[in-house]
Amino acid sequence: VTRSLVISIDAMGGDHGPPVVVPAVAQAAAKLGAEAPTFLLHGDPEALKSEIARCKTAARWDIRPAERVIASDEKPAVALRRGKGTSLWNAVEAVKGGEAGAAVSAGNTGALMAISRLILRMTGELERPPLVATWPGMKGVTTVLDVGANVDCDAARLVQFAIMGEAFHRAAHGVKAPTVGLLNVGSEDMKGHGEVREANRLMREGGFHLDYRGFVEGDDIAKNTVNVVVTDGFSGNIALKTAEGVARFVSGELRKELTSSLPAKLGAFLAQGALRRLRQTINPYAGAPLLGLNGVVVKAHGGTDVRGFAGAVLLAIDLARSGLVGEIDRNMKQLSLAVGPVGDSPVQGAVSS
Amino acid sequence: VTRSLVISIDAMGGDHGPPVVVPAVAQAAAKLGAEAPTFLLHGDPEALKSEIARCKTAARWDIRPAERVIASDEKPAVALRRGKGTSLWNAVEAVKGGEAGAAVSAGNTGALMAISRLILRMTGELERPPLVATWPGMKGVTTVLDVGANVDCDAARLVQFAIMGEAFHRAAHGVKAPTVGLLNVGSEDMKGHGEVREANRLMREGGFHLDYRGFVEGDDIAKNTVNVVVTDGFSGNIALKTAEGVARFVSGELRKELTSSLPAKLGAFLAQGALRRLRQTINPYAGAPLLGLNGVVVKAHGGTDVRGFAGAVLLAIDLARSGLVGEIDRNMKQLSLAVGPVGDSPVQGAVSS
Repeated sequence: VTRSLVISIDAMGGDHGPPVVVPAVAQAAAKLGAEAPTFLLHGDPEALKSEIARCKTAARWDIRPAERVIASDEKPAVALRRGKGTSLWNAVEAVKGGEAGAAVSAGNTGALMAISRLILRMTGELERPPLVATWPGMKGVTTVLDVGANVDCDAARLVQFAIMGEAFHRAAHGVKAPTVGLLNVGSEDMKGHGEVREANRLMREGGFHLDYRGFVEGDDIAKNTVNVVVTDGFSGNIALKTAEGVARFVSGELRKELTSSLPAKLGAFLAQGALRRLRQTINPYAGAPLLGLNGVVVKAHGGTDVRGFAGAVLLAIDLARSGLVGEIDRNMKQLSLAVGPVGDSPVQGAVSS
Repeated sequence: VTRSLVISIDAMGGDHGPPVVVPAVAQAAAKLGAEAPTFLLHGDPEALKSEIARCKTAARWDIRPAERVIASDEKPAVALRRGKGTSLWNAVEAVKGGEAGAAVSAGNTGALMAISRLILRMTGELERPPLVATWPGMKGVTTVLDVGANVDCDAARLVQFAIMGEAFHRAAHGVKAPTVGLLNVGSEDMKGHGEVREANRLMREGGFHLDYRGFVEGDDIAKNTVNVVVTDGFSGNIALKTAEGVARFVSGELRKELTSSLPAKLGAFLAQGALRRLRQTINPYAGAPLLGLNGVVVKAHGGTDVRGFAGAVLLAIDLARSGLVGEIDRNMKQLSLAVGPVGDSPVQGAVSS
């Protein structure tokens, strides 16, 4: 496919809007040079033009006026009813029509998820996109999902996450055949509750096109034992937030200890460049994909800076250029053969996290 | 109660046996001085006498010969059938007869749990003791349970953990009225799956003698938002192991960063005392109680050193001197009123972790 790629941007989303989004898109375009796609910027034309004027960039833009913006505290159900014509809605709609290969927004997470599901629909029999964490570890990053969207998960849903996470990891990190593990309280086949044991059986016997390695435990995430770790949204969310809390505690204790005496203070001063790099290693999250849609949508953090939003844009470009949606679809059909349809595709309201 | 306390010790358990256990008991006795209890040491009399001869201690001992030892890799079901007369079995049996106020063992976890359940029985309608973690945080420690024993938990079991964790935290940490939270993916009442929502309702309406504060999230553990965090053994085990992995990763990165350049190396050298203290803050785990039994049993880590085993002995003494078993019993009766009996008390085989 040599047709040039188009990326659709919600230019008004997030805490900062155009002053962060426009320089971020310019940064991503500069990084890709001649390989850069064209960008549709959905939002207030005046605000966008004045930001673009400030960037000395060769990026190709196309401004798409959108009058309204979805507030960060708008309920997803309200956003669904009244969201038409907003920058977020229009950004996603461009993907549906085929005009754009991917959409990026730093806007309201619940609204983005609900509107994406309404406009793009989920592939196969999925209900809602899992939340995906890109987790730093000793040998690289681990893709962990679901970290919060689907609190109740049966075995078939866990297999769906494996399918989506594997295709995502390949597209985002260039790993040809990502390895996949299922999070459990032990590695033997009889460990854990009924749903993980059944998912383990399905993964082994279902004939999927992926490299499944069996059960893994919590400490395997930071060890990068496998590329993709699959879990339900309840345990995954608890693991993620617990880990964030521990990382913050360890850093805080360190700061305290390193300023507790004169030699330690001097040591901390001398080591401060090293500590700054360490913090960046621990917080690399730029954007998260909404997986399982018939199209690529990337959510950037609401409070992200230029570098973070640029990272989300680059991720969207990688996903749009990969065979992500097709690969997921192929394994989803295999899952239907293995267990039959696993539920319809209702457009529900708020997500859990 | 002025009758002097007796603590029953499995002197052969753990990776090291008497060379660690005997000096550890002497250390605990020295710390308590005139308040020290009498110790029953179950094990090989010759080995014990030679270790005792090496310790210059005023501790009161009573050697109870036990011919056999349960191997660290013995299956719990086998240990149940053939464990009679071992140091572990006899240590627990002394609690049943009322001779000792508590038992301590660094032996095989699964065997200790199975034998304790057989000999002491669980209070109320409990099935098996939850695993308890003492989790360091910004303002002290949080008691977290279950971190692995009970993988499937309904609402009543979660309430049981709350009851046991609250009494444990009071006894172990001297907090008069420990606060309790239920681990979830959000703090609003409608968040999470059915069992946590029902447990939340029961905790609010059940009339228990404890200070329940509602849902908490993963990062609240390290923040010490509440004293006791309650969760099922699946999510709890994943959270604990994930956190251990992240703490190890953060420390490893730090070491790497701090030796990456000459100034950083110098900084690391100057700050090394601070870093050593930090590691101790992060790994304070000495012993874990087996809660919910009709008697106090403390499990020390198999590979623990003298300081660690002494900590487990001191914990056992605190628990034996507190009203732990009675307090748990009172709230368990309240739970029966609220939901009716919640299962009988089968003596099952292996535990999950």
